[in-house]
Amino acid sequence: MMERVAILGTGLLGTSVGLALRAAGFHGSIVGWNRSRAQAETALSMGAIDSIGTDPIAVARASQVVLLAVPIFATLDFMEQLAPVLGPSQLVTDVGSTKTQITESADRHFNTIDRAGFLPGHPMAGKERGGAEMADANLFRNAVWLFTDFPAWQRSAESAALARNWREWVIAMGARILDLGPQRHDELVAWVSHLPQFAATALSAVIEDEMGEAPELKDVGGRALREMTRLGASPWSMWRDIAHTNTDAIAAALEALEQRLAHIRENLRTPQLRDEFEKANRFRRE
Amino acid sequence: MMERVAILGTGLLGTSVGLALRAAGFHGSIVGWNRSRAQAETALSMGAIDSIGTDPIAVARASQVVLLAVPIFATLDFMEQLAPVLGPSQLVTDVGSTKTQITESADRHFNTIDRAGFLPGHPMAGKERGGAEMADANLFRNAVWLFTDFPAWQRSAESAALARNWREWVIAMGARILDLGPQRHDELVAWVSHLPQFAATALSAVIEDEMGEAPELKDVGGRALREMTRLGASPWSMWRDIAHTNTDAIAAALEALEQRLAHIRENLRTPQLRDEFEKANRFRRE
Repeated sequence: MMERVAILGTGLLGTSVGLALRAAGFHGSIVGWNRSRAQAETALSMGAIDSIGTDPIAVARASQVVLLAVPIFATLDFMEQLAPVLGPSQLVTDVGSTKTQITESADRHFNTIDRAGFLPGHPMAGKERGGAEMADANLFRNAVWLFTDFPAWQRSAESAALARNWREWVIAMGARILDLGPQRHDELVAWVSHLPQFAATALSAVIEDEMGEAPELKDVGGRALREMTRLGASPWSMWRDIAHTNTDAIAAALEALEQRLAHIRENLRTPQLRDEFEKANRFRRE
Repeated sequence: MMERVAILGTGLLGTSVGLALRAAGFHGSIVGWNRSRAQAETALSMGAIDSIGTDPIAVARASQVVLLAVPIFATLDFMEQLAPVLGPSQLVTDVGSTKTQITESADRHFNTIDRAGFLPGHPMAGKERGGAEMADANLFRNAVWLFTDFPAWQRSAESAALARNWREWVIAMGARILDLGPQRHDELVAWVSHLPQFAATALSAVIEDEMGEAPELKDVGGRALREMTRLGASPWSMWRDIAHTNTDAIAAALEALEQRLAHIRENLRTPQLRDEFEKANRFRRE
């Protein structure tokens, strides 16, 4: 049974996990660490963690379950640092938005009988602005929490039990679990998560360039504009790692969207426009 | 003072205007007409209109203020039919989403001393699905209601007074008024209203084609996907007229978005991506 948890990275997701665990009745210890200490202090003041650690490796060594809630490249770095110093009675899990590279690293460095287990995870939850102060105990309620676990991994009995236990806590936090392969995960999220983000960034950036100085802009823009550009507020620091670790799938989705927009542009006055609206209507009905 | 209003077209907007006028304290008569009588009956049962007319031209002739709340081409048709049968003690106004052609027609057919006045209007409010049953007395609250009135028009004193009175009722419905020229209107809405719509349609249609069969799609798609495709439910029947009457401005905006997406795609791993996120962040901060 999981009793000592470490959360490395107490931003929006890490702090929300701490709050959600407490709300779900977790009574064990939660130690937090964050690169910028102010975020860890916010998490502490919110009750998401019990104490702040200064050395993330030492914090991880003293815990049963280590949650990595940092950007993807930082997650990959921590995996390399932690693998040699953790043991088979420990489990590491993460919240990274792309899973192929992280799952490959888990296969290389973890999940043998004499090593710590690693359970690659990805909660489909977030906000357009990060930070511990945005954290919410209900962030994962009705969200899907994806795992790209590898059935062939030969985990120690202890780390396998902790992986099962972590899944139970994920459900207790209000999420639904979906297991799928890491490549399939990355292809799916390219379409349903990364493409919408880059579309919102492109739309926001192009309107900023073309119309940012127009004094009437804010008056005329309604709900459609606000909604379609909300994700324009997302930070580059997080999306840089996603763009780097899922480049091909994102590029394919972006190119398909470009072609679709060009097709619509060339058919603004033809019946083909109707077909595109009908396809879009069908997508929303399903 | 306005006492007899006709609403030609009791869909979402027309019915909402009827409800909003009543909520704002209008005690005069409101006669409704709709091409499909069922929508007029819904509007009647909701209290948005007092009675249903069978001949729209006769209904208009018997009214002081005629609100055209039909698609743009139907609005242009009504303008040609009404101009010869209405007189200088009457005002026609509309809610069409593009204004250049409608304002040109108003200049050609209305707004001389011996003819009815025409006040071209466009409330920036709507829903992704139309119909009287979606109508809402608060639809215009805090929305902007645009007018592309022409200061040089020499209206009769009566129709000028009705135009001033209609503006007062628009404010009483909770909207804010913004006056601007028809070309500037159409350029602005191409960017802040039409481009977001066509982007949502393209995104919904391309995901329907590429991923519509994926069983995990609905589980994995989160708030970002729902939000960025909500407008995918918009009906072609309404957007056809907008695409036809604002083609050049929409095509220019679509092409700029295509180029921006291509630029992002080519720079997924370069520092240029940061510039695009920063521009998008700036747009959202303003």
